[in-house]
Amino acid sequence: MDDLQNIKVIGFDADDTLWINETFFREAELEFVKIVSEYASKEYALEALYEVEMANMAIYGYGIKAFTLSLIETACLLSNNNINALDVLGIVNIGKNMLDKPVILLDDIELVLKELSKKYRLIVATKGDLLDQERKLKKSGLIKYFHHIEVMSDKNTESYNALIHHLDIEPREFLMIGNSMKSDVLPVVELGGFGIHVPFHTTWQHEVVEHPQNHPRILEMEHVKKVLQYF
Amino acid sequence: MDDLQNIKVIGFDADDTLWINETFFREAELEFVKIVSEYASKEYALEALYEVEMANMAIYGYGIKAFTLSLIETACLLSNNNINALDVLGIVNIGKNMLDKPVILLDDIELVLKELSKKYRLIVATKGDLLDQERKLKKSGLIKYFHHIEVMSDKNTESYNALIHHLDIEPREFLMIGNSMKSDVLPVVELGGFGIHVPFHTTWQHEVVEHPQNHPRILEMEHVKKVLQYF
Repeated sequence: MDDLQNIKVIGFDADDTLWINETFFREAELEFVKIVSEYASKEYALEALYEVEMANMAIYGYGIKAFTLSLIETACLLSNNNINALDVLGIVNIGKNMLDKPVILLDDIELVLKELSKKYRLIVATKGDLLDQERKLKKSGLIKYFHHIEVMSDKNTESYNALIHHLDIEPREFLMIGNSMKSDVLPVVELGGFGIHVPFHTTWQHEVVEHPQNHPRILEMEHVKKVLQYF
Repeated sequence: MDDLQNIKVIGFDADDTLWINETFFREAELEFVKIVSEYASKEYALEALYEVEMANMAIYGYGIKAFTLSLIETACLLSNNNINALDVLGIVNIGKNMLDKPVILLDDIELVLKELSKKYRLIVATKGDLLDQERKLKKSGLIKYFHHIEVMSDKNTESYNALIHHLDIEPREFLMIGNSMKSDVLPVVELGGFGIHVPFHTTWQHEVVEHPQNHPRILEMEHVKKVLQYF
């Protein structure tokens, strides 16, 4: 690992890094599969959903509202436009329930934030719906540890570059911690920053990429608590 | 008007201040009214829609995706859950078309931004979907005039206070220009800042408030070009 001593700001991803998220999407998908079960198998329904989500990504972006709209569109498609209004309303309510889920912190995350916040400026860098991420931050009780919250429409080198510029630091002074190699680690490392990858037990297909081996500015760890051994 | 000489940063609202927006919502509503016309009159449909939108505001927030989901829910409600899937898909497409509208700048806005940007730090402070606002800013060609883009989940004294703090200025050094007295002017003025209200020809019901008379830190103008007489 290259020199970590320059790090001034540590960025945390939110969903599946601070709290459980993907689990709620998987549960929602299963409820959706049940609703469209007379038209499609589980496998087929999920495949069709993923295709619709990817086709809509450029205009809808990430988040629960985008997901709900894609669920509705997929239900129309799978049912050959025979799905009834009650089922449509059922799908709308899947989305609403997701927006009202409790915030369940991942193990030891508060301990880690508490320790790191003594020595570093901490920020949150997340995708998804602005309002929903604010809701979760408020509910989480974690907001006090962060200097800045950045909700990004996408997490790529361009948006991280703008963020690092905004923070008035050099890339080598920035470390990003998150569960997505693709969104949290690779673009930051490409810019010259550092990344720590802490996988969540389930990863959305869209976020899956090949992992680079032995990169000098990437650490992999099974549990976020291990971060404290380095800082 | 109190002393405008202290102004350092000028904030612009985006929708219906920089470019046309509400017009597209009104057009979308008329398309929706047509789709549900066998179940409800225009007046009744729009009233029901507004009620659903207000009920969903706390969880959905602002923007086209929220609007589309509320349209779908209202269609189910008005049709007593008899609306068919093709019509649901038609509503989904109303939303998609809105997300793909051209950006039509309001008269003289570029001239005003060009002039003001020579002397002041300009920012955008807007509600709505993050991705959609970014899309419009890119399409608009106006992004070069702005130091900072702030997409807010709501525009109230709390969020403006955070913004002013973030900009590292005093409230009396901040002027906000926008078409909504409620969202662009009143909360800023309450904090001690300045507001210029430039009404758009149509205002969403939710944004309508009583206008204060002869407030020392509020200017009303019919056209944004008049700003240049003051700065």
